[in-house]
Amino acid sequence: MTETTVSPQATTTTPAIVPEGATALVEKHRDALADATAALEARSFHSRYNESPSPKVHGEDAAPNGLKAHEGHLGQQFSSLGDQPTTGQWVGGEKSPYGPELGVTYPQLDVDAALEAATAAAKAWRNAGPEARAAVCVEIIDRINARGFEMAQAVMHTSGQPFVMAFQAGGPHAQDRALEAVTVALAEQRKVPESVVWEKPAKGEPIRMQKDYRVVGRGVGLVIGCNTFPTWNAYPGIFASLATANPVVIKPHPQAILPLAITVEVAREVLVEAGFDAALVQLAPEETGGTLAKDLALHPAVKIIDYTGGPGFGGWLETEAAAAGKLVYTEKAGLNSVVVDSFSDLRAATGNLAFSFSLYSGQMCTAPQNVYVKASGINTPDGELTAEEFATSLGKAITAFNKEDAKAVEILGATVNDDVRARANDFAGLAERLGGQPVLEPREVEHPKFPDAVVRTPGIILLDSDKRDAYSQECFGPVVFVIKTDSTDESLQIVTDTVQEHGAMTMAVYSTDEGVLADSREAAADAGVALSENLMGQIFVNQTAAFSDFHGTGANPAANAAYADAAFISNRFRVVTTRRHV
Amino acid sequence: MTETTVSPQATTTTPAIVPEGATALVEKHRDALADATAALEARSFHSRYNESPSPKVHGEDAAPNGLKAHEGHLGQQFSSLGDQPTTGQWVGGEKSPYGPELGVTYPQLDVDAALEAATAAAKAWRNAGPEARAAVCVEIIDRINARGFEMAQAVMHTSGQPFVMAFQAGGPHAQDRALEAVTVALAEQRKVPESVVWEKPAKGEPIRMQKDYRVVGRGVGLVIGCNTFPTWNAYPGIFASLATANPVVIKPHPQAILPLAITVEVAREVLVEAGFDAALVQLAPEETGGTLAKDLALHPAVKIIDYTGGPGFGGWLETEAAAAGKLVYTEKAGLNSVVVDSFSDLRAATGNLAFSFSLYSGQMCTAPQNVYVKASGINTPDGELTAEEFATSLGKAITAFNKEDAKAVEILGATVNDDVRARANDFAGLAERLGGQPVLEPREVEHPKFPDAVVRTPGIILLDSDKRDAYSQECFGPVVFVIKTDSTDESLQIVTDTVQEHGAMTMAVYSTDEGVLADSREAAADAGVALSENLMGQIFVNQTAAFSDFHGTGANPAANAAYADAAFISNRFRVVTTRRHV
Repeated sequence: MTETTVSPQATTTTPAIVPEGATALVEKHRDALADATAALEARSFHSRYNESPSPKVHGEDAAPNGLKAHEGHLGQQFSSLGDQPTTGQWVGGEKSPYGPELGVTYPQLDVDAALEAATAAAKAWRNAGPEARAAVCVEIIDRINARGFEMAQAVMHTSGQPFVMAFQAGGPHAQDRALEAVTVALAEQRKVPESVVWEKPAKGEPIRMQKDYRVVGRGVGLVIGCNTFPTWNAYPGIFASLATANPVVIKPHPQAILPLAITVEVAREVLVEAGFDAALVQLAPEETGGTLAKDLALHPAVKIIDYTGGPGFGGWLETEAAAAGKLVYTEKAGLNSVVVDSFSDLRAATGNLAFSFSLYSGQMCTAPQNVYVKASGINTPDGELTAEEFATSLGKAITAFNKEDAKAVEILGATVNDDVRARANDFAGLAERLGGQPVLEPREVEHPKFPDAVVRTPGIILLDSDKRDAYSQECFGPVVFVIKTDSTDESLQIVTDTVQEHGAMTMAVYSTDEGVLADSREAAADAGVALSENLMGQIFVNQTAAFSDFHGTGANPAANAAYADAAFISNRFRVVTTRRHV
Repeated sequence: MTETTVSPQATTTTPAIVPEGATALVEKHRDALADATAALEARSFHSRYNESPSPKVHGEDAAPNGLKAHEGHLGQQFSSLGDQPTTGQWVGGEKSPYGPELGVTYPQLDVDAALEAATAAAKAWRNAGPEARAAVCVEIIDRINARGFEMAQAVMHTSGQPFVMAFQAGGPHAQDRALEAVTVALAEQRKVPESVVWEKPAKGEPIRMQKDYRVVGRGVGLVIGCNTFPTWNAYPGIFASLATANPVVIKPHPQAILPLAITVEVAREVLVEAGFDAALVQLAPEETGGTLAKDLALHPAVKIIDYTGGPGFGGWLETEAAAAGKLVYTEKAGLNSVVVDSFSDLRAATGNLAFSFSLYSGQMCTAPQNVYVKASGINTPDGELTAEEFATSLGKAITAFNKEDAKAVEILGATVNDDVRARANDFAGLAERLGGQPVLEPREVEHPKFPDAVVRTPGIILLDSDKRDAYSQECFGPVVFVIKTDSTDESLQIVTDTVQEHGAMTMAVYSTDEGVLADSREAAADAGVALSENLMGQIFVNQTAAFSDFHGTGANPAANAAYADAAFISNRFRVVTTRRHV
């Protein structure tokens, strides 16, 4: 008979080595991480960072102080990156979409020395364990939040976003996505116990082994930022890699360096205070036309790449960098689609869409572009519409929404580059080249404070569904295609086909028919794109909420990953087991 | 003041559509999946399938009936794959490493028709939801288990494994790994709730949205089998892809088709009984020298690839197939390493190692090959040894362990291919080419039942540590290198460097010094390889337990994935959100 035995307790032989500063942060942020973890599991509303820029929240001085801090950077060397290895050169060249040159220059990174320093710093970061890393990350995000108005100016004057949007999307919303990445990373690492005693039944005494599981990073994580959302799109990758034991090198878009320079400054400060090496986070700035992203992507020390930007370089990463063995997470471009079948409230629906098209002049990766409308028989409470009549209604809603210049600029922001401006400025030519009919011309809007800003309202082009080449390309910026189809079935089929081929971040449908909604859900599942149904209030198709909405699906060519699911996190670290008899 | 409101309950608008047969299986396997899930979380011992081939467990008739079933296949067309699309050709050519030709032929797959059928079958599989898929998978595994003795014969006569090992590793152990993959897949999918109501605080009533989350597969999963572990190494990929809503096409090694043909037969039977399309699992057999793996890997319908085998084709997949956008999971080859510093019990340690080297003639991906030994001063209770003395002791242990042919063949099995046999047959030549000194020659062992089987005991070559080229290559089969170093520090440094460069599935250390053990854990973490410490009993470095030991780490070139963690599973599916106001 087998004797009853008491199993020995597991005690890891590789305990975490946590510096004092980090220990304090673990305590400080325990509740924040618990709350975030609960929200993640429930996918409920959760925001640690207040999205309101109101003085009631931040005090009367916050906004002017932020502006002052921003102005303090202009025309100066950004010298707060500490001892980052540098070539001695200073690089810059940012020009605000609102007009002014920023004139900020940044120390050019000595890439080999920087990657060596990052690799050396990684060991203590690995050995500190998941809880310490998560707490340090939360502290970094909190400290970025504390510089919210300065960050808002930096984001506004690099991306061209309007001020409130720059404050929100560049600040609290980006920070919530950062916290989400940290929370997913912590949850994924917590799934692996530190130490267990394993007992296999055997004749007599069971065979007992102690097994320790240790999380190790992959290597340096490279994050390549974009022009339009310098923080929002960079933070998930930065914090996902960092929280999973990888050092990070951040290569901002040459026209949107400042927001990430501030980010790196804060991260390095916090890391040092917590007892780690600042080399865990480094900035790799370059000027327009450089090849640093490519050079870094293929550097042997770089193992993980996060990228947001155009499909050209994104495609190169997905082929060349993936073939070189790098983990590549991309968000590129796509054909965000709306299917119009029928309306319970036409005015509310077109009003909602007008906001979505106007916000930041359609320069969001989630902004809708292609509106598929059956040629006739669109039901509304006030009778049926044809596609042309719907396009006209939508045009009126856009015009009404943007009627006052001073208010319109606070939604439209400024056009970010010459490509966008070219399409807006020769809209009739664009319509003609595409074989479509202009229904609404973009309107020139004058910015009361920044006369050099190029601001345009969205324009609408009506296209027949057989012009698939025309609407199968992304026309980034204030361009809306209303595409006339034979039926809603055809609309859904085209959405499925074009999204599978060209990608999309978002899809919306308007219908009062439950059967059409059910078909739309099947089409969304087939196409692999998130669906919003009958949005008519204060939620917009181009907005996603951290902890609840996945941003992108990773299931179509627009993006190979989503913010932030297990697939975005779990391959950034590996588990090394140690086992022995007890 | 905000009124207190009751939140509406979430009810998904895309409920799972589960056929009646599958509903019954969900009920039937609820407890099995709950037990497996609990074991996975605790990483505790868990085995659903009894590893003993004893008649006391299976009855007196089980083994002879299994043999009879096996003999029933020989020389026949394998015609139990139902309506798999076929070219009309029959392919085969398997020859048992024990001598006989199997003479089984299999229907050649019509690839395009098969992938079309798989894709069409995927929709109902997707819409059935995670619970139904998991239950169907468990039923498939249970039914494979019921054919355990037939499978043991099939594995033995394709891989060359000895009978008991073929029964265990090809049967229950493979099935436990399959169940593990299903369990991880279910856990990963369960993390995503089906439906939630999201409430954002606002003035007055909160903004409320219902959000449904739907798991969608990626596309066809291709599983490329290997010769030595046709089921054990194929099941994790097969069941990981299937359980996450992807149809699977299985391309067996041309010399190990039968075990996977039986697997596919069972899977297709169960799928149809459960109300699904058999096209969800298909067999793609080919003869030696074919290019089917490559053709399938680059087929547009294939989105996921699982591969076990040599580094040549594995490397091609990691570059070319990865560049083509496929998710690629590989297990290739490496330099499994043992570091010898000191012993509390030399005899027990060399006995344990003798088993590890002898088992299946070193033809396991986890079998140790490189033993790093300091030149002198190896402490044992009976005094110090030099490296040469240790090599001699190890040789004696191997010789003693394999002294009786009839018993030895039940551990050694048969050599699987000409490469392995060439190294064993010209061992002196191998030692000379590598610049080493043969310490123990492989011995010819006569198989009492299969005179044509080529069976060899392990041989030992002593090498100096400066012969790095010699020991930086995998010599698959019964070849042991004892490598003489200046110190244990040097041994650990070489392990770290060579494993990071060439990969390893396993590492072991023998030391009575806690400091050396701590250094070994750091080296294992740096190299990214699992470590076993001081194994001297009934646990061997080349064995890993499902639900507890990760097989591989994915952190070095030997394998880019581990059985079975979240990283192995979570990117095989994506989540599509649908949201609307409530």
